[in-house]
Amino acid sequence: MSMTRRDFIQSLGAVAGVEAVHRTMQALGLSGTGEARAAEADLSRGSGQGKTVVILGAGISGMAAAYELSKAGYRCTILEAAGRAGGRNLTVRGGDVIEETGGRQRVAFDRGDHLYANLGPARIPYHHRAILGYCKEFGVELEVFTNDNRAALFHNRERFGGKPVAARQVVTDTRGYIAELLAKAVDGDALDGELTGEDKERVLEMLVQWGGLDPDRLYKGSDRAGYRGEKLHAGLKAGEVNSPLDFGDLLKADFWQYKLHFSHFLNQNPTLFQPVGGMDAIAKAFERRVGPLIRYHSPTRQIRKTPDGVRIVYRQGGRDADGAIDADFAICTIPAPVLKDIPNDFSRETQAVIESVEFVPAVKVAFQARRRFWEEDHAIYGGISWTDQDITQIWYPPYGYHRDKGIIVGAYIWDEKPGLRFGEMTPVERLRAATAEGERMHPGYAAEMESGVSLAWARVPFQKGGWPKSRHKSPEALQKPDGPIHFAGDQVSGLPGWQEGAVLGAHMAVRAINERVLAK
Amino acid sequence: MSMTRRDFIQSLGAVAGVEAVHRTMQALGLSGTGEARAAEADLSRGSGQGKTVVILGAGISGMAAAYELSKAGYRCTILEAAGRAGGRNLTVRGGDVIEETGGRQRVAFDRGDHLYANLGPARIPYHHRAILGYCKEFGVELEVFTNDNRAALFHNRERFGGKPVAARQVVTDTRGYIAELLAKAVDGDALDGELTGEDKERVLEMLVQWGGLDPDRLYKGSDRAGYRGEKLHAGLKAGEVNSPLDFGDLLKADFWQYKLHFSHFLNQNPTLFQPVGGMDAIAKAFERRVGPLIRYHSPTRQIRKTPDGVRIVYRQGGRDADGAIDADFAICTIPAPVLKDIPNDFSRETQAVIESVEFVPAVKVAFQARRRFWEEDHAIYGGISWTDQDITQIWYPPYGYHRDKGIIVGAYIWDEKPGLRFGEMTPVERLRAATAEGERMHPGYAAEMESGVSLAWARVPFQKGGWPKSRHKSPEALQKPDGPIHFAGDQVSGLPGWQEGAVLGAHMAVRAINERVLAK
Repeated sequence: MSMTRRDFIQSLGAVAGVEAVHRTMQALGLSGTGEARAAEADLSRGSGQGKTVVILGAGISGMAAAYELSKAGYRCTILEAAGRAGGRNLTVRGGDVIEETGGRQRVAFDRGDHLYANLGPARIPYHHRAILGYCKEFGVELEVFTNDNRAALFHNRERFGGKPVAARQVVTDTRGYIAELLAKAVDGDALDGELTGEDKERVLEMLVQWGGLDPDRLYKGSDRAGYRGEKLHAGLKAGEVNSPLDFGDLLKADFWQYKLHFSHFLNQNPTLFQPVGGMDAIAKAFERRVGPLIRYHSPTRQIRKTPDGVRIVYRQGGRDADGAIDADFAICTIPAPVLKDIPNDFSRETQAVIESVEFVPAVKVAFQARRRFWEEDHAIYGGISWTDQDITQIWYPPYGYHRDKGIIVGAYIWDEKPGLRFGEMTPVERLRAATAEGERMHPGYAAEMESGVSLAWARVPFQKGGWPKSRHKSPEALQKPDGPIHFAGDQVSGLPGWQEGAVLGAHMAVRAINERVLAK
Repeated sequence: MSMTRRDFIQSLGAVAGVEAVHRTMQALGLSGTGEARAAEADLSRGSGQGKTVVILGAGISGMAAAYELSKAGYRCTILEAAGRAGGRNLTVRGGDVIEETGGRQRVAFDRGDHLYANLGPARIPYHHRAILGYCKEFGVELEVFTNDNRAALFHNRERFGGKPVAARQVVTDTRGYIAELLAKAVDGDALDGELTGEDKERVLEMLVQWGGLDPDRLYKGSDRAGYRGEKLHAGLKAGEVNSPLDFGDLLKADFWQYKLHFSHFLNQNPTLFQPVGGMDAIAKAFERRVGPLIRYHSPTRQIRKTPDGVRIVYRQGGRDADGAIDADFAICTIPAPVLKDIPNDFSRETQAVIESVEFVPAVKVAFQARRRFWEEDHAIYGGISWTDQDITQIWYPPYGYHRDKGIIVGAYIWDEKPGLRFGEMTPVERLRAATAEGERMHPGYAAEMESGVSLAWARVPFQKGGWPKSRHKSPEALQKPDGPIHFAGDQVSGLPGWQEGAVLGAHMAVRAINERVLAK
């Protein structure tokens, strides 16, 4: 696909509208062949009858809404506060500038198609059909994202001498001990009230296999946990298997506190994906289709109801003046922490809901390493190491395997306290803190790093947070429109922080608007 | 990399030897930049002093041996019985011909870089450092192979109404029940002899989290197992979680018999890899480097000891005559089931060991599907479904996601009885049997298939099996040379059936030969 061709289509969009762009791209075979069944918002073509919709925010949700509405004949305008589309879908590369309130960082990564960091969403589970549907429809190439790498590490400063242990050991040994304990209880007839005699026998057989027990039903270690020393596999002669980790230490460590079953959570289950080359491939694919509709650098200043619809007052990009746009409907994807301070005509109830939504002060730090020491020295290919330090996680890049350099995520924090702690540091202090903590996981870590960047989402203008805390009550309340204003974004969904939630929110809003139009 | 450049290098190899090819490729930047630390066979350059080695078999082991020996100044010849290099490293594509004793199949797949099947090895675990080292050194691009996909299926004809159930349900519910049972036993003080009071509390807390138990420590289902009906995630409103599968049925089904912990085995642990475009990318990368040394269509007829070394009598490719080659040493990678029938001068002990090695009658069936219904209809992206039917497994291609068609592995059989049963069928009968069984996993399966191929490794000339049964005693016996004849191949390693074993066997043999040369 040549840039010339794309340029042509973009320019077509500017004069002929998105529907024409869509038809042209289809004709040119640029918009994918397969039907993205799950991505369909189910509007019939032309049902929009030229009605106008102003969409607040050119993130994934806003762009998905504009895309679907445009196909159905609505006339859309997207007001985007920032100078780029994508919202929290943010991939950074060498030369990019990262803006936070009170600070700018220039990304000093080398150029290279594997030298990027996804500072926003980074994975797509297999069952997120709507966003995957768009990937298919738009031809966004996918590769596997690895959550669960048994070569990655678990680290607790107070256990196992403060040294990290391999996931394969923690997973295998924890299972082994659980199986042994249960086998003893079953064998000792403690569960005769729960199990028939036949089931007892089967449970015992199962535990031996499932837990890697010895024939005497004791857990004495298993080659599933790997071999002693540097020996990673059976090789020419089977080695000695690792001694099991101490069960008391395993219990006292925090590993079992959600980390050990992290990849069992439905949204963290394999198979997971990421777009080849960076998550923003999705944002860019949307932007290619709805770009002509976006007004950049146009933060919303007021959200007003009018007798016939809505009036949005916004700062006009590049000018020191406000503009206004009237429309039949609005779709508002502005994150609640930003939205709550924008003057509006919302009902008191709506305003109260918006004010109740707290966002997670998520922080990511990414480093460029001069060599992929995690692969070369430790055979760690992708996946996540866990620590009880502030950085919480280290992500090894699940892309660019075996290449010269790599971008490692040196911190991914979402807990309130460490998130705020890191957020308050200067960029340099964050890198220093993250390397110091990484050093405890990988001795020599700091010396491998060539440059780094950090992002505290709570300090990002027009975002003010990573995603809605999942316990908030807003989704269902925000699924109802307030007059002509519909809400979207992941904050209206049961999947906060996920692009799937953003898309489902968009589809909900466009369907609701369409029903109103058709009902008139 | 242009073919012209490669052609140039190949022609250079024919006149100047492999060492020159190696140096030229390095100079051209074609042989990778990083040091393949684990792949080093550790011979010092020039130590070979022009000694001659004849290598029997141009599989991964034979080619790795030739590559390392050539770099060290040995003069190598590889005798390959078949018309291609790679041995059991076999990827098939449209137009290829598959040869079995008593049958030929032409592969009718469409052309397309994602339309291939790896009928031999298909995965490389992260800790197989030697073969991964070669991938790095040779610039073989890797992508993730998925064993454990929670969207894939478990199927037992007699359980759950004979209908397949999702892996996420089997995994989650089995854990849940185990956790509940153990919690009851701990709570009922049945394990007071095993656990301190403090540990008891911790075990109970752990089980609640680890097993997804309710606060009352009962397993009543978990959203980790997914939602009822077609709902795959929380969506706009959280759905109802699936009812747990019946524990009695889970116990009576065969799922826990190694299938449920399959990805916990060290060699099946994530992260696993595959070369982009087919496993034979590795074979081809070796062949580019040692191709000029290979004599194709040259099956070994006799293996003889001479006063100064070895004499190999072989059938000369294309001619109706035998040739002979004398060398200082031989490295024999011929699989034991073939080797045992080749006239030789082995010691009685060596011959007895070779005769004792039985190979697994592995069978694979691969189909081209007209659409990727597993992705489109079931959100299954890669991974493996299990069944108690003969086909044993269905593999969904972990490559070419979202593309138009796909190659699905419709049977991967390694158990003796079904392996032999399928082996005895004609190719057409195999396809019919595999589609009938697949139909029970995916109704409509047969109608999706456009063409298929099968391979019964026990019937492949010059192979006669998939890999050595792991219980055989041969590896250590075959790690010793018999006079000037050294053995290699996965059959001499503790990793039968793995390319890593083939490479380690090669490295062992070349090191042993080198030590003998240096000791003289």
